[in-house]
Amino acid sequence: MNESKPFSTLEWIGDIDGYLKILDQTQLPGKLVYIDCQDEHQVWHAIKSLQVRGAPAIGIAAAYGVCLGLKALASPTEDSLFDRLEAVTAYLASSRPTAVNLFWALERMKRHAAACRGIMSHQQIRQALLEEARAIHEEDRAICRGIGDWGSTLLSDGMGILTHCNAGALATSELGTALAAIYTAVASGKRLSVFAAETRPLWQGARLTTWELSMHGIPVTLICDNMAAQVMREGKVQAVIVGADRIAANGDTANKIGTYGLAVLAKAHRIPFYVAAPSSTFDLSLPHGGLIPIEQRAAEEVTCPFGLPIAPKGVAAYNPAFDVTPAELITAIIYERGIISPVNEGTVRAAIEPLHRRKEAISSGEKPNPHR
Amino acid sequence: MNESKPFSTLEWIGDIDGYLKILDQTQLPGKLVYIDCQDEHQVWHAIKSLQVRGAPAIGIAAAYGVCLGLKALASPTEDSLFDRLEAVTAYLASSRPTAVNLFWALERMKRHAAACRGIMSHQQIRQALLEEARAIHEEDRAICRGIGDWGSTLLSDGMGILTHCNAGALATSELGTALAAIYTAVASGKRLSVFAAETRPLWQGARLTTWELSMHGIPVTLICDNMAAQVMREGKVQAVIVGADRIAANGDTANKIGTYGLAVLAKAHRIPFYVAAPSSTFDLSLPHGGLIPIEQRAAEEVTCPFGLPIAPKGVAAYNPAFDVTPAELITAIIYERGIISPVNEGTVRAAIEPLHRRKEAISSGEKPNPHR
Repeated sequence: MNESKPFSTLEWIGDIDGYLKILDQTQLPGKLVYIDCQDEHQVWHAIKSLQVRGAPAIGIAAAYGVCLGLKALASPTEDSLFDRLEAVTAYLASSRPTAVNLFWALERMKRHAAACRGIMSHQQIRQALLEEARAIHEEDRAICRGIGDWGSTLLSDGMGILTHCNAGALATSELGTALAAIYTAVASGKRLSVFAAETRPLWQGARLTTWELSMHGIPVTLICDNMAAQVMREGKVQAVIVGADRIAANGDTANKIGTYGLAVLAKAHRIPFYVAAPSSTFDLSLPHGGLIPIEQRAAEEVTCPFGLPIAPKGVAAYNPAFDVTPAELITAIIYERGIISPVNEGTVRAAIEPLHRRKEAISSGEKPNPHR
Repeated sequence: MNESKPFSTLEWIGDIDGYLKILDQTQLPGKLVYIDCQDEHQVWHAIKSLQVRGAPAIGIAAAYGVCLGLKALASPTEDSLFDRLEAVTAYLASSRPTAVNLFWALERMKRHAAACRGIMSHQQIRQALLEEARAIHEEDRAICRGIGDWGSTLLSDGMGILTHCNAGALATSELGTALAAIYTAVASGKRLSVFAAETRPLWQGARLTTWELSMHGIPVTLICDNMAAQVMREGKVQAVIVGADRIAANGDTANKIGTYGLAVLAKAHRIPFYVAAPSSTFDLSLPHGGLIPIEQRAAEEVTCPFGLPIAPKGVAAYNPAFDVTPAELITAIIYERGIISPVNEGTVRAAIEPLHRRKEAISSGEKPNPHR
């Protein structure tokens, strides 16, 4: 995919005085528009307004946003740099208060700066922070590649694959999570055809997934969400693969509304149901998915999508933003280092706990190398 | 419902020189507009453009359309009346070539006129045909009431009911089929709350079902189709009830796309799944639902609903207009004379064959009574 990359979700252009180029996803699929973010305000607005979306992509954008915020320093002293760092990270954190990757990336930038304090010049710290942002970006690329490599082993030549929402290149640095498996399988010569469920109410499947798969030349067919059962019954689909927002210690998986229903339908049709997500999506502090709160969103997203009124004014609407798929409906979870199957607390902890422990060890003990 | 009827799907106003008043469903839910059809051309257009929809309602509109076509007779001779009758029925039959009730109603009008020929005056025949149209209309009312009476026995006070598409007053003469059960239960004092699945791609649930239930003061909550599983899992729904387009001899039921998926989800959540339909919907010549062809509709309904482009131009879309729910997923079928449960070829034939035989006997042997 690197060779003929048809678009870039986000990209840093230039050196420490450079800028962040973001693909404006609110314009898709109608227009391919890039925004050059020259300061932290533009990044804040891009995250807030969903111009950039998807947990990994938001984290990367915020990290680069910190670098932008440090460009316009009044006096190049260490104190003023750290005052500004505090202000910029707090400001960026306010863009989307529920995005876990946002806080994680900002925290990592602050921790890295703190480790540099006193041993580096003002310019060296800015350089080190740009490198840290690039490291976050590159690590996400590597994670996507890992998920793609493992996930592709589950997909065979000739398969029809059903996916939901957008867990693709637009949500991450590069390949995506669920779609990484598809991109990698296709790159290795397997012929796949993808069914994209439109994903009401915000149509991420219709607007984003069909667009990015088409840009990569992968055959994709859009269906309404309520056609999934029929497509399965007709034998058009041999696997379902989706992303995840949060995975509990027992494997219960929160993802975009509609995912749980697809898992039930997949089981009824004896079709494997796969979740693809980086290890950072696992929240091992949660014993099970029943503890994940279900966010309710505005009724207007359902009753008046993108300004089109489809229901009587004032009618009640229920709009849960996601649902929880119980582990027993998940055939396998694909992460950057392997495949968890069967999915239960034992297999999840065995796979993920070592990775989480290693990250904690690194972040508490690591000394930054300004020349890496 | 008669006492405080908030709207009328279709109504004949006046005597044989009167006109047909139709509620324009293409304007719903935004506007409550009635069309006064003064000639057969307006009726043809109303059916063609979906201003009136739903198999029973189309049949009734066509029958009245015949009466309108006989108003403007050049010479009041018997021959000219029957020539005109042939022309008008052929013309009206061309409005929607797949609507079975349309042909059935037109055939019945022609048969009735033929039985009157030679024994009645020109004016008496017109009068007899208006009465036949009114009889078709009234019989549909009685069928809806029968379905409502039987269906309401399955619904208990406090239940949440999920329905799909619009099988309500807007599709029939009065109470509807699936919604008749709800209207009748509520009229008998049961408190129900209804979840209406939006029913992509044409949003009949969002546009029509929420509207007509709201007009009757019945609590209704709109959901996207992909939220049904979550609503079931949360225990908000104790029954699913839908209409039908065609039911095979073994009980397999063709209905609006999305119905089959709801039946699978209902079974997984141990929620009863009911179909409500008049006996005329059963096609006993079909041994099973696999023989029902699945109509494919235009991709644009999926990719550009009501003029809103939600996917890249030219992207492929799959758009089956309906699906078939196998009998084993149907807890019961409610018809105008009772409830079929369990649903299989034996129970379906035992219930429906006598009704079909009686109708055949009446239509081949009946002599019309001009004074009834």
